[in-house]
Amino acid sequence: MTKPIWIKHAAQVATLASDVKGPRSKAAMSDLGLIEDGSLWIEEGVIQAVGTTKEIEKRYGDKTKEAEIVNASGHLLTPGLVDPHTHVVFGGSRAREFEMRLEGATYMEIMNAGGGIHATTRMTRTASEEELIEQTMRRLDSFLAHGVTTIEGKSGYGMNLETELKQLRIMKKLKDKHVLEIVPTFMGAHAVPVEFKEREDEFVDHLIRDMLPAVAEEKLAEFNDVFCEKDVFTPEQSERILEAGKQYGLIPKIHADEIAPYGGAELAARTGAISAEHLLKASDEGIQAMAKAGTIACLLPATALYLREEAAQGRKMIDQGVPVAISTDCNPGSSPTTSMPLVMNLACISMRMTPAEALTAATYNAACAINREKQIGSLEVGKQADLVLWNVKNYQELQYLFGVNHVKSVWKKGVQVLTAGRPNEDAATRLVLGRT
Amino acid sequence: MTKPIWIKHAAQVATLASDVKGPRSKAAMSDLGLIEDGSLWIEEGVIQAVGTTKEIEKRYGDKTKEAEIVNASGHLLTPGLVDPHTHVVFGGSRAREFEMRLEGATYMEIMNAGGGIHATTRMTRTASEEELIEQTMRRLDSFLAHGVTTIEGKSGYGMNLETELKQLRIMKKLKDKHVLEIVPTFMGAHAVPVEFKEREDEFVDHLIRDMLPAVAEEKLAEFNDVFCEKDVFTPEQSERILEAGKQYGLIPKIHADEIAPYGGAELAARTGAISAEHLLKASDEGIQAMAKAGTIACLLPATALYLREEAAQGRKMIDQGVPVAISTDCNPGSSPTTSMPLVMNLACISMRMTPAEALTAATYNAACAINREKQIGSLEVGKQADLVLWNVKNYQELQYLFGVNHVKSVWKKGVQVLTAGRPNEDAATRLVLGRT
Ligand SMILES: [Zn+2]
Ligand SMILES: [Zn+2]
Repeated sequence: MTKPIWIKHAAQVATLASDVKGPRSKAAMSDLGLIEDGSLWIEEGVIQAVGTTKEIEKRYGDKTKEAEIVNASGHLLTPGLVDPHTHVVFGGSRAREFEMRLEGATYMEIMNAGGGIHATTRMTRTASEEELIEQTMRRLDSFLAHGVTTIEGKSGYGMNLETELKQLRIMKKLKDKHVLEIVPTFMGAHAVPVEFKEREDEFVDHLIRDMLPAVAEEKLAEFNDVFCEKDVFTPEQSERILEAGKQYGLIPKIHADEIAPYGGAELAARTGAISAEHLLKASDEGIQAMAKAGTIACLLPATALYLREEAAQGRKMIDQGVPVAISTDCNPGSSPTTSMPLVMNLACISMRMTPAEALTAATYNAACAINREKQIGSLEVGKQADLVLWNVKNYQELQYLFGVNHVKSVWKKGVQVLTAGRPNEDAATRLVLGRT
Repeated sequence: MTKPIWIKHAAQVATLASDVKGPRSKAAMSDLGLIEDGSLWIEEGVIQAVGTTKEIEKRYGDKTKEAEIVNASGHLLTPGLVDPHTHVVFGGSRAREFEMRLEGATYMEIMNAGGGIHATTRMTRTASEEELIEQTMRRLDSFLAHGVTTIEGKSGYGMNLETELKQLRIMKKLKDKHVLEIVPTFMGAHAVPVEFKEREDEFVDHLIRDMLPAVAEEKLAEFNDVFCEKDVFTPEQSERILEAGKQYGLIPKIHADEIAPYGGAELAARTGAISAEHLLKASDEGIQAMAKAGTIACLLPATALYLREEAAQGRKMIDQGVPVAISTDCNPGSSPTTSMPLVMNLACISMRMTPAEALTAATYNAACAINREKQIGSLEVGKQADLVLWNVKNYQELQYLFGVNHVKSVWKKGVQVLTAGRPNEDAATRLVLGRT
């Protein structure tokens, strides 16, 4: 048995506790369940009590003497951030491609120098499992340093059975290697692989016939995602893939309407997808359909920035009743970043979401987008003690003082894995080995 | 006498050494003076040698045994970043104003709730010196954590003699309190203070007659800056202020063409300003005049992002021969950030500068913009040992892996003031007390 932990005197605790269960929209996204001079009581990795410091002191009385005490005076305390959309397992680097583009290289020059998604696919196919694990671990460290305690991770740089399984198995293995939790999504339909060029339907047949059953057999994924976009997969092909996945219990997600309006938002609502991603060019009808169906819009403003696109209409979607989550979209081509704090800032700056809505989108609604809102995403009794203490005194400053990683300390399942910006390697190791 | 320091085996050293003296433009901005497997030898805070690890090892031979050795294997080493444009000394916070705007408050509601530059002026006027020093110190800590070792700092939230002097004296006092160097700029003409509303010329007279001599008398500033913009100060008023400053040896700088083309770039070239700032709307003629005069364009892409404006035309300016520097513009209204790494990323993403140009703009050219290129801005023999070791292996990754503060360690005048992302309070204290 470990000592109870008492985090006390937080300038502000954003509990995200609410009577609204399930994805939050409209005014519910602004309710952070704030407590001033707040306290949290943790035992065995689970939140036992949340309240003002006075309330907690009164409730635990003498027991407080046995607790490990953390004085959070002057600091904001929030749930651990959740990133509901990443392509975190991949091989190689495309830093040189980034430079070539800025040096004015043509599309063909970049392709010839090994650029684009097919380059990442090639590098992911050829990388050994050890290399991929090592690269991914460094990204997970960086997520954790930015206050992220759970992410979703997609396959999709294999686009053949062998490498798709390799990516998903790596996510599973990382459970025993890193404290950050990865919720896995199968995304064989990330692009049409070069060997199926102009035979998209055959690739869809292959994916449904050979990949989905193998992924399901090993229980490697919870979600099934598809890139529904002009010149990639049509809404019809996407629907076939998602419906086939449902037969195996895989919940649909859709990369929708990123480049052009293509009915992706509408399809997400119709097919019962848990979330639709990107949505830069979603139609008004699509937005309304999502609001009606309760489909979460997973918006990716860092990707829009990196690609110099107008960000998705976060403000409008919230006002129309769509529950909004946000994510880094961490990937080597269009968003090589791990900073959820920056993504929250961009939600405010580029999508005109309020500071409160941005925090809800990066915690509770993000947890909903990966079907984990019962365990994480808010600070409530019985939930996993995944928390971040910030070097700011309120939630407004977290977004206002932009471009800076304000993370001070991070707890995962009640274990302090980051203190004053530095990882606690020993604590993290004990946690993954289950010895805390 | 302190031990020599030998930083060795850096994956890449970007020395920024070049035969081009003075502000760099065109191809000279791409020349980072790269050394693979590089070494730096430092004695008494000064760079004594730069070369490959083999060269330095051969040169110092047995002496290497006495040195403090830093193994920089796998890491990029660069000069300390220089931020040539900040409004770092100010009172109060405008986080709530940021939130109100996003909640849809009207201009009048925000003004009534105490928003805008005049709110900061009020809060800076009423703040005690101690409060301002304490707030500014926290910002300096954050700059340092982001790899910045020297900044420019402007007055301009006083707009009366008393508070302008208070701001500038604080910058002077901070020399004995913080390792980060501040190069001071007088900017009494930051806006027209409320008490001079619609009497702009009278304010200009007052500034020239009363403020400039007092600032010069105490030697409180090196530069004289003015906000030349429609409805603020006309080019004629700006020129009067800048020419008057020259009489006291103050070098002109101009906030120019931020909101509308207004002849600010042209004025900067004509009046011999060392730099012109913002330049979002600079005319083609203005850009050509700056290129011809060698005026540095100090571009502020984080401000453009925060205000949702199209960034300045960095790519075009470089191509046309204007030397470009970049800066956070750290201020409470339009850019509350201290992240020069993000500013470099945005120089690439929003202004289409290459990774090499962005680094030159944040080091050597930034040093030129504050008249310090003889002391800092590049890693050359005889220069001050201000350096940053980064958690990336080359300069491309520094920009490609965006939105993340990759700083690992920072040296100021040869003293390691930040190690593995954490400040060395003791070393920093010794340094400011001159006891190293
Ligand atoms: Zn994606
Ligand atoms: Zn400014």
